[in-house]
Formats: sequence, C-alpha cells, structure tokens
Amino acid sequence: MRVSHLSAALLVALGLSWSSATLASETRIPDSVVKDATALRDRALQDNTSWKIVESLTSEVGPRLAGSEGDARAVAWAKAKFKALGYDKVWTQDVTFPKWERRSEHGEVLGRSSQELKLTALGGSPGGTVQGEVVRFDDLKALQAVKPGSLKGKIVFVDILMPRARDGHGYGIGSTVRRAGPPAAARAGAVGYVMRPAGTDWHRNPHTGMTRFDDQTPIPSASLTNNDADQLARLVALGKTEIKVALDCGFNGMYTSQNVIGEITGTTKPDEIVALGGHLDSWDLGTGAIDDGGGVALTMAVGHLIKQMKIKPVRTIRVVAFANEEQGLFGGRVYTESQQKDIRKHQMVMESDSGPGMIYAFGGNWAPEAGAAVKQMYDVIAPLGIAYEPLKGSAESEMGLMQARGAASAAFSHDASLYFDLHHTPDDTLDKIDPKALKQNTAAYAAVALMAANAEGSLGSGPEIAKPER
Amino acid sequence: MRVSHLSAALLVALGLSWSSATLASETRIPDSVVKDATALRDRALQDNTSWKIVESLTSEVGPRLAGSEGDARAVAWAKAKFKALGYDKVWTQDVTFPKWERRSEHGEVLGRSSQELKLTALGGSPGGTVQGEVVRFDDLKALQAVKPGSLKGKIVFVDILMPRARDGHGYGIGSTVRRAGPPAAARAGAVGYVMRPAGTDWHRNPHTGMTRFDDQTPIPSASLTNNDADQLARLVALGKTEIKVALDCGFNGMYTSQNVIGEITGTTKPDEIVALGGHLDSWDLGTGAIDDGGGVALTMAVGHLIKQMKIKPVRTIRVVAFANEEQGLFGGRVYTESQQKDIRKHQMVMESDSGPGMIYAFGGNWAPEAGAAVKQMYDVIAPLGIAYEPLKGSAESEMGLMQARGAASAAFSHDASLYFDLHHTPDDTLDKIDPKALKQNTAAYAAVALMAANAEGSLGSGPEIAKPER
Repeated sequence: MRVSHLSAALLVALGLSWSSATLASETRIPDSVVKDATALRDRALQDNTSWKIVESLTSEVGPRLAGSEGDARAVAWAKAKFKALGYDKVWTQDVTFPKWERRSEHGEVLGRSSQELKLTALGGSPGGTVQGEVVRFDDLKALQAVKPGSLKGKIVFVDILMPRARDGHGYGIGSTVRRAGPPAAARAGAVGYVMRPAGTDWHRNPHTGMTRFDDQTPIPSASLTNNDADQLARLVALGKTEIKVALDCGFNGMYTSQNVIGEITGTTKPDEIVALGGHLDSWDLGTGAIDDGGGVALTMAVGHLIKQMKIKPVRTIRVVAFANEEQGLFGGRVYTESQQKDIRKHQMVMESDSGPGMIYAFGGNWAPEAGAAVKQMYDVIAPLGIAYEPLKGSAESEMGLMQARGAASAAFSHDASLYFDLHHTPDDTLDKIDPKALKQNTAAYAAVALMAANAEGSLGSGPEIAKPER
Repeated sequence: MRVSHLSAALLVALGLSWSSATLASETRIPDSVVKDATALRDRALQDNTSWKIVESLTSEVGPRLAGSEGDARAVAWAKAKFKALGYDKVWTQDVTFPKWERRSEHGEVLGRSSQELKLTALGGSPGGTVQGEVVRFDDLKALQAVKPGSLKGKIVFVDILMPRARDGHGYGIGSTVRRAGPPAAARAGAVGYVMRPAGTDWHRNPHTGMTRFDDQTPIPSASLTNNDADQLARLVALGKTEIKVALDCGFNGMYTSQNVIGEITGTTKPDEIVALGGHLDSWDLGTGAIDDGGGVALTMAVGHLIKQMKIKPVRTIRVVAFANEEQGLFGGRVYTESQQKDIRKHQMVMESDSGPGMIYAFGGNWAPEAGAAVKQMYDVIAPLGIAYEPLKGSAESEMGLMQARGAASAAFSHDASLYFDLHHTPDDTLDKIDPKALKQNTAAYAAVALMAANAEGSLGSGPEIAKPER
C-alpha cells in the first residue's frame, strides 16, 4: 500500500506538515466489521423498509411545504417513525424561518391568442397581478446587462433550456436562471418575471424553487412549463405578445419547525457520530417522493436494519430529517451550528438529496490516513455497480454544510438523469421511485455507515480537511 | 386475381345476390394516377405543410373547447387557412349544441392526511361542492349492482386501470368507466364520483372527456390522475377516507359553431366526393395537438399538396374540420345528415382522430368490385411501413358515421401506444407530435385520397356496404 506516501503528498498540498495534522495510525475496518457490513448490504437488498417509510410519508403526510400544516404533520410523523423503527433516542432541534405561502396562481396570454399559461410561483415571490408585453431573453447575461429601468412595465421571459445529465449538472444552469433572473428583471424595471423551468420534462408540470431579490423591490416571478415556454416563444416570435401573471403568495410571518433526529447509540464511543440525512420538507406541488422522501426513508432504514440484525455500532448512528431545506438549508444551518464544536466527533457524514436513483459512484472527503479504510468500504459496495472516485464529490445539502466545516464525508452519486423531470413539480410522487434503486441505495448507505461507525481509527474530521459544499 | 371469386363469396355472406349489388366493371387506378400518387407521397414525405398548420392552430388558437371563445377563433382560423392553402371553395355548416363550461375545479383529502387531489371535471358534469366518505370499486359491474340509494352521501371512486395498447383498445375500458360510472354512482345515491383516468400516464395530468346521466340526477363527477388514484387507493386501504370535490362547471345555454369545409373541385366529376376529416374542437386543458390538431392539419395539407403539384383530381377532394366532436360528434351528425342523399356520391371517406402516430395498417370498407383498386392504393403506401388489412377497421369519429351510412372508407391505424398518455389532458401540446410520423401520415392520406379521386370506377358507396361505426 502506498497510502502513507499519498498522505505525505496531500499534506504538502494542503500546506500542512505531519506534525500539524492529527496523526493517527492508519485507520482500518476490522474483518468482522467488513463481514457484518456485507451481510447488512445483502439484507438491505432484500428488505423493503425504505419503501414502506417513503410510502407512508408521501401518502399519509403528502406535501409538506416548510411552514405548512403538512410540515407540522411531517415532524410528528418523523418522531413516531423513528420510535417505531427502534431508534434508541429521538430528539428535535427548533428551526425558525420566514414562512412563505402559495395560495393561488394563474397565467394567461392576452389578446389574439388568448389562452392559459401553466405556471407556478417561485418560492420567495411576492403576490400580485401584473400584465405587460413579454420581452424574451435567451441569455441571462444580456438581461443583467440592460440599462436599469429600461424594461419598465414589461414582463421578462428568460428562455434557457436546462440540459439533461446523469450527474444533474444542468441544474446549475436552471437554478441560476431561477435565482438570478428575477432580481435582474426587477432591476431592469420589469413588472413581472417568467422563465423556462429548471427542469427537463415536457409534461405541463411547472417547476418551483426559491428565488431571492436582495436589494431590489421584489416582483411577481413564476416558472412556466417547458411546453408553455415553447408556446410563449412561438407567440413572441409572431409578434407583440402580452401576458398576465396573477400570483397570490408571499411571506407571512415566522414559523418554527424542527429537525427530527433519531439515534442508534454507539456502544463504546457513543459521543462519536456517523450522521446520515435527508430533508423532511418538500415543495407543495407534489408529495416529495424523490425530493426528498427517498433520502429520508433510506437513511431512516439504515438504523432500523442495523438494529434488526442485532449489530452493535461502536459509534452512534445518527439520522437527521432536516427541516426546511428547500427555502435555504434552514435546518442544516441550525444543525451545523449546533455541531460546530463537535465537527471532529463526526466520524463521517452523508446525505441523499439528489433523488433515489441508482448510485453509480462513491467518493467523498476524508483525511489521508483514512484512505485505506475508505477503500475497504468501497470494496463492500462495489458489487452494487458503483465506481470509486476517492476524494471526489461532496456530501449533499445539509451534510454539505458539515463537510464545509471539516466533517469527513461519503458522497454517493445517484443517477439524476430523470430527477429534473420531476424535481419541484406536481409529478414528484411515489410512483417515480424505483424500488430496486431504493434498495441499492439503502444497501450502500447502510454498509458504509456501519463500517464508518465501527472503523478502528478516525476518518479525520476537522477544519483542516474542510472542502466547500458544492 | 381472385377478386371476383371473393366478391361472390362476400355477397353471399351479406345475403345479397349479384343482381342486387351495384354491378360495375372492376374499379381500377390508371397507371398515370398511380404515378401521380407515388410522386405526391414522396413530396409529402419531404414537406412540412402539416406541421406548419398544426403549429399555427395549436399556438395561435390554442385550446378550443366547443362553445368557447377559442372555438370561434378556430372557426375563423380554419376558414382563413383553407383559403391560404389554395382550396377552391370554402364553406361552413352550422352546428348547434348545448354549451358546457369549466370554470374551476378542486379536490382534496380531508382529515388526517389532508392534501390536494389533482382532478378535472368530466365533460357534462354539473357543478357543485360535495364531500363524503370514499367508497372504492375496482369493478364497474359491482357498482352497477349495488342497491339504489345504498351509497347515500358517499363519493364513489372507480379504480380501474386502463391498459396501454398500440391499437388503443384499452380506451374501451377507460371510456366505459367515464360514461357509465357517474350515472351508476348517482343511481346508488352517491353525492359525487371520481375515477382513475381513462389514460395511461403517470404525470399528474387528469384526463377529461364526456359523461352523461340519462334519467339520473347528475352528480359532480371528475377524473383523478393515475398518481392521485394510486394515492387515494392507498389512503382508502388505510382506513375511512373523506374527500371534497368542488367543481364549478356545467351546461349554459346553446351555442352554434360551424363545420368548416374546404374543397379542391374535381375536374370531370365535381359532384363526386373524396371526403377527409379531422375535428377542429379540442378539450380545454391542452392545445389539442394530437386530438385532433394533427388530424385537421394532415387532411388540410392533402388538398394543398395536390394543388401545389398541379395534379387535377377528377372528383372533388373535400376536407372537413368538424365542430364539437368531443361532446358527442355534433359536427359529424350535421354533416352526415346533410349528405344522407349523397352517400353514393362519396367515393371514399377517411378521418384521422386517433393521434398522428405512425400508421401501421391500412384497411377500410368498400364494395367487392373495388378490391383490386384498393390493393393498388395499398401498394403505393406499403413502402411507408404499412400493413394491409383489407375490409378491416373503420373510418374514425365523424367519418365513422358516414361509413355507417354506407360510404366506402379508408381506415388508417395509427400507433396509439402513447396517445392515451396525452389524450384529453393538459399535456396534449405540439411537442408531442412526431414530425416524421406526421409526414408519413400526410403521405398516406394524400396518396389514397388522390387515387380514390381519380379511380376509374366507384368504390361502391351505398347502404348495402354499410358497416357500423366502431
């Protein structure tokens, strides 16, 4: 093994010396733990606990927009579910945020081709009814470059197609149009904003998601469907086109929800933590099956399966169902803040929040001395059809915040080819989860979590290995 | 050729004798006409007129529910389009029907799992807000067999999955649930009716379509999406489930729309007609691209292409854009009634109303003496990947009414595998049309129409060959 060579090289690259790093003997996974993890993996492949959890959440609770009545029911559901699954300890953290509500929304083309436009308000949009001539941009920079006030009375339409990709990278484009478009339109003097969705489907389902306005006066801002964006582009090409956008939505006071946390207490190192997570809230349009019911379900199933198999984790397995991810990682920020002093106690963090598609690659972040141990972890999940990408990728969403503070992480790359057909739409429903992929996911997270919990030695969490969240 | 043998056998089967049939010498397509039809077919395969027509109709007019403002715009559009396409004569027929309107609709689960249910009112449903316990049936006969009045105050949910099929036969099941379910629920005393859709997709798009009540007092009746039907079935399985259905819709007076008819006048037999059709109205939820913008477009393109190629049809090519098919073949009934005395003058009828999917088979109905001529027609379209099914299949919708009166028909079987994913939903939009299939469709209809128009001899229309509409 050339691990110590590699370690030295990395330390040099990081500007550290051997003496400044937490020097430990090389971390390893004992054979008995590899054996347990292999059995756990195989059990998970045959088990439908994850499915039953996500079925229960999406059916019995359904949509759970942060701050809504569904949010409160989701919190109660999560507390009860952790207990029912045999977790040793269930606790919560209060998470307070501005409550955004969607009450009604409507769009239409006016005049010679009058017809409905299917759209949905972007999260954070103010309400209001506006109408005006459409000015179409196929380039965000062009919108950002127009003279302030020069689009007075217009409705800006940003028409940029988000590409489909297994690694979901197209969302970088789509989400930028969603975040940066509305303030740019407001700055230009527009009375409203519509966009081609941050989404890859043509099923007449609009994609919601947050936007923000910083110092501009907010304007009603909505996403069309791809079908309606096509239609609007055709009409604009034919001549002057006026539309009306009527949104009844907006911020309405503060709300306190909760992170719900379940733990399987470690035997000899209960203060050290392997933390898994997903987010409990969803957008309101669908039932949040792929975003992020699947992530909540598969991480919740991990502790249950370990209990069922009577395996004793040395460290504590902690599963966090985060509050209000969608509107700005509110739950993740509360959690990360609360763990600031305990970053080094987080043996490893991991999160599933890019949909429960098949995992095709495994990477993450860890200290040099943990490389061999992580390779041992990989070897257990390799038969699940997963490639190895050591020291690549990031823990997602909330756990990305923990990684950015220095927590060692496992990063699972889920196939996101279809994820953005569904993401933030009414079409995010239980039927979209592939039960086989969900089992593969559960098997991979469970095996890695157990090996991290029972590793001999640390994976090296600490500010010195901090990697920014993606 | 064994055509005369076959003819004799058929006449015996029909209980006719040679003397009672219109005996003519065997009909044939002159070589020069086969040549023109072949050139027309090849031109159509390279031409995008059909696409441009359906793009214009679905974009500039958009949804065109019978009786709506969009209906009036569609009629004006069709008149102008026929003229622009070079048709010799454009005329209309008034079509009067009860106007049904959809104003708003909402469904929700009440109580412990409160959440929205996506649904849409069935055409013909009355408005009203009802709530009650759901009683689920997975068998229509079981609903029809319950004691009258025994479901007082309940909301009936008929949960029967419509199968996907290339020939679209699953729609027989789905449309029966839609037509026969509401009156059966009303008879049983239910206050409302919801159903799994007559549709094969899981994209949160409800499928509308007509229902009727005959002598029962109408009750609010709606179709869920397949996703929502799954959800409701799960909740009902967990325990007593109450839902609320709030529909603002219903009949509102009478309306007069128009069949719009364009003709390329025949040179030597202008009184004899080859009639092609599609329907101009659509449901209101989508823009009616596949139902039936494609059918209107490809039949309209036929006359244009013949004109463009300076081919002179001997008989008149008549293209009918029918009014209000969706709510009960109103335009078709007006047309058929108006042609009752001229059935024999209809050399051949054909209609495209099962979506512009690839045509995979060609059949229809004709008199024995026309068999060889129809085989000549088939030989021209065979290279388009079309199978021959002589004397099988029916002209669709309105032209099915004409066939039922004895008009000789061409029946094109379009691949409907995906049609019922979209049919009567918001998702019936232009992007769903495959431009290649639309060209193939246009080529096949154009070649057959031209050969029918210029055949030497009749295809044998008359009450004696009447075949019931499918």
